[in-house]
Amino acid sequence: MDKLNMGKHISNKFNEELEAVRNRVLSMGGLVEQQLSDALTAIQTADVELAEKVLTNDHKINKLEVQIDEECVHIIAKRQPAASDLRLVIAIIKTIADLERIGDEAERIAKVAKESFSNDQQQLLVSLENLGHQILIMLRKVLDAFARMDLDSAYEVHRQDEQADRQYEALTRQLMTYMMEDSRSIPKIMNVLWSARSLERMGDRCQNIAEYIIFFVKGKDVRHVSPESIERTVKGDRTS
Amino acid sequence: MDKLNMGKHISNKFNEELEAVRNRVLSMGGLVEQQLSDALTAIQTADVELAEKVLTNDHKINKLEVQIDEECVHIIAKRQPAASDLRLVIAIIKTIADLERIGDEAERIAKVAKESFSNDQQQLLVSLENLGHQILIMLRKVLDAFARMDLDSAYEVHRQDEQADRQYEALTRQLMTYMMEDSRSIPKIMNVLWSARSLERMGDRCQNIAEYIIFFVKGKDVRHVSPESIERTVKGDRTS
Repeated sequence: MDKLNMGKHISNKFNEELEAVRNRVLSMGGLVEQQLSDALTAIQTADVELAEKVLTNDHKINKLEVQIDEECVHIIAKRQPAASDLRLVIAIIKTIADLERIGDEAERIAKVAKESFSNDQQQLLVSLENLGHQILIMLRKVLDAFARMDLDSAYEVHRQDEQADRQYEALTRQLMTYMMEDSRSIPKIMNVLWSARSLERMGDRCQNIAEYIIFFVKGKDVRHVSPESIERTVKGDRTS
Repeated sequence: MDKLNMGKHISNKFNEELEAVRNRVLSMGGLVEQQLSDALTAIQTADVELAEKVLTNDHKINKLEVQIDEECVHIIAKRQPAASDLRLVIAIIKTIADLERIGDEAERIAKVAKESFSNDQQQLLVSLENLGHQILIMLRKVLDAFARMDLDSAYEVHRQDEQADRQYEALTRQLMTYMMEDSRSIPKIMNVLWSARSLERMGDRCQNIAEYIIFFVKGKDVRHVSPESIERTVKGDRTS
């Protein structure tokens, strides 16, 4: 908490409000993580019931997004935060937008999980497993980085996205080869492809959240800059 | 301007700042509109040079996003806006994020436009034309709605997205049929499909921007609510 300068506030109430909204973001993150994990399990095990659960749970994430957004606007209006407090509120507003979209992508995967695949086709879904696992790890890590506002973990997630992109491209090529070999399976494989795309987009969103964490901690916007420049921002002027 | 309550500010400087940042959003919007229009022309006419232009111009949009974001944070810290002024700043922060992503999708279409298609395949690209045209109209309309903070236009764009979604689904089915008929063309058609998906996502983002406009004008967050509820928010308690 000291790291977040929360001890410095004159108003204890303000501390409490910031802390409450941060905790709510973590709850939302936990829910999104569960949705992704469930969607991946549903698609691997052809569990239609679990897929349905993901679809019905999405509204909880949407509701949290709207609530947290409202609280943030309220905090800005009432507390008029500046410097790192304001950066925290802005980082939260942006983070929850990306979390909500990750939830939407999990919903898309759950929709595919509801379809019936032949045994042969079920094999295709296994190819999603690796990418899915990697994205789930990235999501967990970036949420953990957010909880502790940890620069190093955020930077690590940021770099991992390149690896996820490469894995996605290899998977896409593999799936296209299957389509060319068996044209009747095209509609099913397309659904697997859309799911792979959803996972790839989730990776991008984890990278976005990593950027907001870096923005909060370092006060520098690292979107659209070179990897070298991000490295300098993260590793530059370390006291330890 | 009176409509935006700008005349009420004690500080003329604050008025000017808000007006400047709003104008910058409109410049950014104009740039994004041009990028989409160029990407669509490039893919229809197989104009590789124009596609290259779209790719090299994307950084301008990214730069504007970061600049406007900075200005918004600066305004919040310095001017401590409340009520509708704060809603305007928040709506701007969210709008530019969606505009930037629309720019990214235009870039994706431009990448496809750089590929060489056979005469037969070029025909497929024509099928993108209708959807592309519809999305371009939605983008223009929502930017115009943003410029005037016009509730009715925003609501119209919001409703048009459903139509765009239906058009996208029909196009997807058509393209999948082509793939099944000629499996050698699968990689090319996949690229057309990704472009169609990009257009569909742009429509979603125009819908998002419409929601921010409604949020600003009505002070009510209409994300994730039913179409009926949005209609009530937009049309409710009209004085005229």
